[in-house]
Amino acid sequence: MSLLVVGSVAFDSVETPFGKAEEVLGGSATYFSTAASFFTDVKLVAVVGEDFPEAHVDFLKSREIDVNGLQKASGKTFRWKGRYDFDLNQAHTLDTQLNVFASFKPQIPEKYKDAEYVFLANIDPVLQLEVLKQVKKPKLVACDTMNFWIEGKLHELKETLKYVDILTINEGEARELSKEPNLVKAAKTILSFGPKTLIVKRGEYGSLMFSNSGIFAAPAYPLESVFDPTGAGDSFAGGFMGYLSNTGNLADGNIRQAIIFGSVMASFNVEEFSLNRMKTLTYAEIEQRYTSFKRLTHFEDL
Amino acid sequence: MSLLVVGSVAFDSVETPFGKAEEVLGGSATYFSTAASFFTDVKLVAVVGEDFPEAHVDFLKSREIDVNGLQKASGKTFRWKGRYDFDLNQAHTLDTQLNVFASFKPQIPEKYKDAEYVFLANIDPVLQLEVLKQVKKPKLVACDTMNFWIEGKLHELKETLKYVDILTINEGEARELSKEPNLVKAAKTILSFGPKTLIVKRGEYGSLMFSNSGIFAAPAYPLESVFDPTGAGDSFAGGFMGYLSNTGNLADGNIRQAIIFGSVMASFNVEEFSLNRMKTLTYAEIEQRYTSFKRLTHFEDL
Repeated sequence: MSLLVVGSVAFDSVETPFGKAEEVLGGSATYFSTAASFFTDVKLVAVVGEDFPEAHVDFLKSREIDVNGLQKASGKTFRWKGRYDFDLNQAHTLDTQLNVFASFKPQIPEKYKDAEYVFLANIDPVLQLEVLKQVKKPKLVACDTMNFWIEGKLHELKETLKYVDILTINEGEARELSKEPNLVKAAKTILSFGPKTLIVKRGEYGSLMFSNSGIFAAPAYPLESVFDPTGAGDSFAGGFMGYLSNTGNLADGNIRQAIIFGSVMASFNVEEFSLNRMKTLTYAEIEQRYTSFKRLTHFEDL
Repeated sequence: MSLLVVGSVAFDSVETPFGKAEEVLGGSATYFSTAASFFTDVKLVAVVGEDFPEAHVDFLKSREIDVNGLQKASGKTFRWKGRYDFDLNQAHTLDTQLNVFASFKPQIPEKYKDAEYVFLANIDPVLQLEVLKQVKKPKLVACDTMNFWIEGKLHELKETLKYVDILTINEGEARELSKEPNLVKAAKTILSFGPKTLIVKRGEYGSLMFSNSGIFAAPAYPLESVFDPTGAGDSFAGGFMGYLSNTGNLADGNIRQAIIFGSVMASFNVEEFSLNRMKTLTYAEIEQRYTSFKRLTHFEDL
């Protein structure tokens, strides 16, 4: 089955305690679609400026990502600049230049409209809803958001959430969206807004999934060198949705496996700057790390 | 087999967003021994003052804890006063009155000296080592410590660690002790100090165990109401050591199960102030929550 993602394609400039990268390929849709491309066919919708090099498009094509929905607009590509200190869970934004992203109106190409799996990366919830109006009858819609929209467009976000099956947000955002400090109560509140499943991302602490089948806790993979956390959440979502799209199975057990595949992709992504680790990654390595996750969490029944 | 614990018995005054408790029963050895008593015979060594009520001793006896090592000294019992905000991972100490604990010299009663399992709760590492000199030939020694000793008695702490099999500390302390921000590297450094196993406690994020068998990640149980986190770490250690002492099995698989039992005991402990939850807890409930931990973490192999 095929998977549609709508989000950003950007240039990132990142400083971590371990080095820095200037104007490297980034953006939520880039990370998502690259991670998902190891599992399924991906169709990408985003906008870039005239300064976006063909080499980056070629990379996406090399991952067999359908880039017919990648619009080129006059102006410059979206730029984000950030810094991480030793607490790699916390990104400090130094500069954001929306550029062509400021007037982005997602146009879903005709041949994308029957996508069965849809991921709405972190963009304006009004645009997310407009995307949903353009797709025909998706089997599963997942979406990400951030504190900026929770604070600035709460009403619109709640409207979008009515049409979303799975929401992936981080821990602080879950508390902010629900106005509830306890995460279990926060999850109940958020599930009452529409989504059937909530995935709370906790950075180096892993993730928690809440649904009416119960709660699933997945750790993050303990890595000896975390180089750059940028894109971890979108790589997670890409592995997660890619696996679901590939298997077409939405049973609780399969969603749990998808979360582990998402965690696997996030763990590889943070090993190098930008999408560099994805360039050498093999599916055999992905399966190997899945097995390592099993070993990491396994204990015997009573 | 029998389990010896040396630590504090105290009065705690605690404020959380959900209420407050004044001068209630607390202390590392109290929490540890009560949790462990659900699994094995516990012998307690600690000191209290003349103001310590017989009713608290009776509670420990009701849990069949051997209190022959509970010294009564002239003066007042150790008092700790703390506050938790909505971030329940972080205790803010408001006041500490060491009182009789200031001159505590642990005397191990003759009949305690052949204890096979020993837990050195968070006290001066010099005293921890003196305890180890008094016990005959323990099969397993575990120990806790805190930033106060890492900062003030690092040399003495490292000396004690040479004789310790398992160290349980929190995440920040692991980084401080090893002078290494990455937790995987921190664990390697700490294991080079002597312990064969390191358990890193991460509050509401669970725990990580490091040993030469690999890494084990256990979540904390997602609770809808966390009332008072005081004693969670010692209850964890009590469940963990209690289960090991009961089974006498130090294989990696059994240590993993012990960590889950520790997590179970911590999860119950935080449901009420002081040791109140322990007063009504049954072993059937403990087994039930162990099974819930299995459901919480389970996913299928590839």
